[in-house]
Amino acid sequence: MSEYQVIPPRSGTAFILKKNQSLTVIDIEGEQVADLMCYNLNDTNEYLSSGRTIDYAGKIFLTSGDPFYSNRSNVMFTITGDTVGRHDFLLTPCSSEMFRIIYGDDKPHKGCFGNLCEALEPFGIRSDQVPVTFNVFMNVSVESVTGKITVLPPLSKAGDSLTLVAEMDLLVGLTACSAGMSNNFCFKPIGFRLDP
Amino acid sequence: MSEYQVIPPRSGTAFILKKNQSLTVIDIEGEQVADLMCYNLNDTNEYLSSGRTIDYAGKIFLTSGDPFYSNRSNVMFTITGDTVGRHDFLLTPCSSEMFRIIYGDDKPHKGCFGNLCEALEPFGIRSDQVPVTFNVFMNVSVESVTGKITVLPPLSKAGDSLTLVAEMDLLVGLTACSAGMSNNFCFKPIGFRLDP
Repeated sequence: MSEYQVIPPRSGTAFILKKNQSLTVIDIEGEQVADLMCYNLNDTNEYLSSGRTIDYAGKIFLTSGDPFYSNRSNVMFTITGDTVGRHDFLLTPCSSEMFRIIYGDDKPHKGCFGNLCEALEPFGIRSDQVPVTFNVFMNVSVESVTGKITVLPPLSKAGDSLTLVAEMDLLVGLTACSAGMSNNFCFKPIGFRLDP
Repeated sequence: MSEYQVIPPRSGTAFILKKNQSLTVIDIEGEQVADLMCYNLNDTNEYLSSGRTIDYAGKIFLTSGDPFYSNRSNVMFTITGDTVGRHDFLLTPCSSEMFRIIYGDDKPHKGCFGNLCEALEPFGIRSDQVPVTFNVFMNVSVESVTGKITVLPPLSKAGDSLTLVAEMDLLVGLTACSAGMSNNFCFKPIGFRLDP
């Protein structure tokens, strides 16, 4: 595998991905999740929309070939490679509020939400602008009859990856996930690489 | 049934719902959908979040007793009555872009998205602030293995209703849905009532 940058466990980063550039997200050790959010670089009021993407795709599980839409129904990126095939697009990032509400943590970690907010803040993004994210490698099952969701260990093994190509200039936020349940209770790094 | 206001077919409205007031949404004729969006009346940057609500509920189908959370993880409202039990919280409202992309309409209707934007604009809400809505009576199935979603006719019959109680002062947008597929291809009105 060629070189890549590393996001340390329970942290996040933000970067610019120009139109036609590709981003590859790499699960270095396996069973780790990376929450991804993106904005139109030239107007950050335009952002990745789970609801529009799922509606137009006709499915909740997105993979190679699927376009991802903004809140204005423009294509932001398309997945061009995916060695795993199971990712989540229903849930907001883990957050201190989530750790408090679901797990009862008294001193909760800031979570992927806090990490995304910190990484995106220098680009002018406010915390209220971080909605449902595309949670790469996150394995959330949905029970058809009851609608029950279950967060399961990721299907990704060491070296698995997802590649997307930007269809517009993007500001991207990306994390190595902070929620135990999402990564089989072992916090790990995430790798990523930008290609021209 | 006591008195109620009527939202004509393929239109929308907006109103204030004060804390502890209840809103009842009524399917007057049956098999009709009402898209609902809400904001903290005192800070409209706080809005209804599908991702946080689904995460904390542990399910995608919400009904009586379930609290609905904002993007800041505060409870906005709780469902206190529901004679149907099946609503959608995955999809953005139907929109001119949706009619164009999914149905290939050359001159698409503005949809619930356009109706919500128009109704909420006098309250200072911008179109970019209308995300995934809570789609009352909308019947969207999810196939567990493939993730395929299917929009089915609502399960609601004439006179069915959903009641929620506000847990904070809310600005609410509500529609009588404009998408044929959501209401079994017959556009109908929606009733609603506010109780003290």
